[in-house]
Amino acid sequence: MRIHVPIPLRWSDFDAYAHVNNAEMLRLLEEARIQAFWRPDEGASGAATALLDARPGAKTVSLIARQEIEYLAPIPYMRAPIDIEMWIGHIGGASLDICYELYSPTGVTPRVLFTRASTTLVMVTASTGKPERIAEELRHAWSPYLEEPVSFTKRR
Amino acid sequence: MRIHVPIPLRWSDFDAYAHVNNAEMLRLLEEARIQAFWRPDEGASGAATALLDARPGAKTVSLIARQEIEYLAPIPYMRAPIDIEMWIGHIGGASLDICYELYSPTGVTPRVLFTRASTTLVMVTASTGKPERIAEELRHAWSPYLEEPVSFTKRR
Amino acid sequence: MRIHVPIPLRWSDFDAYAHVNNAEMLRLLEEARIQAFWRPDEGASGAATALLDARPGAKTVSLIARQEIEYLAPIPYMRAPIDIEMWIGHIGGASLDICYELYSPTGVTPRVLFTRASTTLVMVTASTGKPERIAEELRHAWSPYLEEPVSFTKRR
Amino acid sequence: MRIHVPIPLRWSDFDAYAHVNNAEMLRLLEEARIQAFWRPDEGASGAATALLDARPGAKTVSLIARQEIEYLAPIPYMRAPIDIEMWIGHIGGASLDICYELYSPTGVTPRVLFTRASTTLVMVTASTGKPERIAEELRHAWSPYLEEPVSFTKRR
Repeated sequence: MRIHVPIPLRWSDFDAYAHVNNAEMLRLLEEARIQAFWRPDEGASGAATALLDARPGAKTVSLIARQEIEYLAPIPYMRAPIDIEMWIGHIGGASLDICYELYSPTGVTPRVLFTRASTTLVMVTASTGKPERIAEELRHAWSPYLEEPVSFTKRR
Repeated sequence: MRIHVPIPLRWSDFDAYAHVNNAEMLRLLEEARIQAFWRPDEGASGAATALLDARPGAKTVSLIARQEIEYLAPIPYMRAPIDIEMWIGHIGGASLDICYELYSPTGVTPRVLFTRASTTLVMVTASTGKPERIAEELRHAWSPYLEEPVSFTKRR
Repeated sequence: MRIHVPIPLRWSDFDAYAHVNNAEMLRLLEEARIQAFWRPDEGASGAATALLDARPGAKTVSLIARQEIEYLAPIPYMRAPIDIEMWIGHIGGASLDICYELYSPTGVTPRVLFTRASTTLVMVTASTGKPERIAEELRHAWSPYLEEPVSFTKRR
Repeated sequence: MRIHVPIPLRWSDFDAYAHVNNAEMLRLLEEARIQAFWRPDEGASGAATALLDARPGAKTVSLIARQEIEYLAPIPYMRAPIDIEMWIGHIGGASLDICYELYSPTGVTPRVLFTRASTTLVMVTASTGKPERIAEELRHAWSPYLEEPVSFTKRR
């Protein structure tokens, strides 16, 4: 089971080669991650997995420990939002691996896989800066999305 | 032997946590890579390794195939340029692994290692889109900077 | 009559003060302008005003000649898209003034006006770089949205 | 008398037209403004005009109230830093108009004026959010740079 998040591109995501800039790719992952895992605004409804509290003053913060990206095909300019598939590749004591595959917009054929990526988040107690065990409530909500981590094919 | 490139931060590199944004980190690597490996402006002098021609219309283009980053310590706001160390972790037929370590500004003690990263570039013939063997002239210029690839410690 | 475009913010739009960065504001205007005035993707439907062809190779290009922005209230982080109102403040021979008011998301009360802005676009023939008279078809489609230009109150 | 600040461009400042993106221009102004008017890092030396304290927790903050930009010529990719000239167009009770002209790098002939701009800053007491009179010490340090405001030629 995967989480699907449509992410609209912006004209400013494109570089002088008219493709989504390699660095901007991390911003697209960030937006998808926020929509899938961060609590929505007060009063709004969100995904069942959107349980992280990232507001200023939250007791627990999630830090990014690592990221890995394979660029398979350049992303050309398009107005329809790209389709980002997400799942969880690993849940450790205090850390979480989020996996991503970035595809062409829903309904466009043939479907193109542009990018594969993963991000490791570490939960940290804001007041002490120490890693903090992921709560059972979060493990429970996330477990349906746990599957094999993304397979990177270009590692050396 | 390593290439040292000082890269000034910009205020806009910082996110709402007052640290260099994780995505912005790739822009810092990009700037360091350009200064180390791209040919300088007409008439200007550049590093001995700065041999790639990235001007519009160049016969060979270098595409980014993968990137990997480990975030070890957040980068706080500072006006002095950070010190990016670069070396080459692998030269294949048509591809090149550039390795990075991002350190606190030269002269600041104790020296802090903020980030480790690597980028795989693939040389491609612009007219055909096919991988192209890296020229002997480039291999020769780059070989003094060839050493063990960066050791990532957080891979799963 | 005004054009309303909802524009989702991104986490990366925020600076170390936790407000939308002043420079990023121009990217929000850019996205709104593109959705209101640029032709949609092949096969997609767009606004009645979306007639400009910005694809590579288009015969006419629109260049930005000036921009003016008044920041009335900082934009805090929110997940609902902000509501950008747009209209046309002036149509000249070859140029067009687009006016903007950036408001809190639709449905949020009380409604807050964050920013007022305007952009002057000049139509230019791509092959010659010379200004080009705006076609009657465009004037006709845009005329319902013509009203008094935005009133800037902080000009010196 | 004007303040000259060299600002290096980044590859990521360029958009799909291979020119500095219109929104990115505000980031270049921001960097120039910071170098000219913000206090340098502890222990570093800065310009005589660099007196504003923008560190977290500072008693006075400077907010941007308005910006105006005229784009005269596109900025092409170059490695040498562009030359940003700055002066003060107006000092009011609590506000300050900074004027900019962006030129081609020092030493390049003929010299090209790419952009004219101005920014209005308002000094605000952090604890109350109320405008605060600019201190005599600042007025004194800035007065040598006071001259006629930038002349915008494209206002309607």
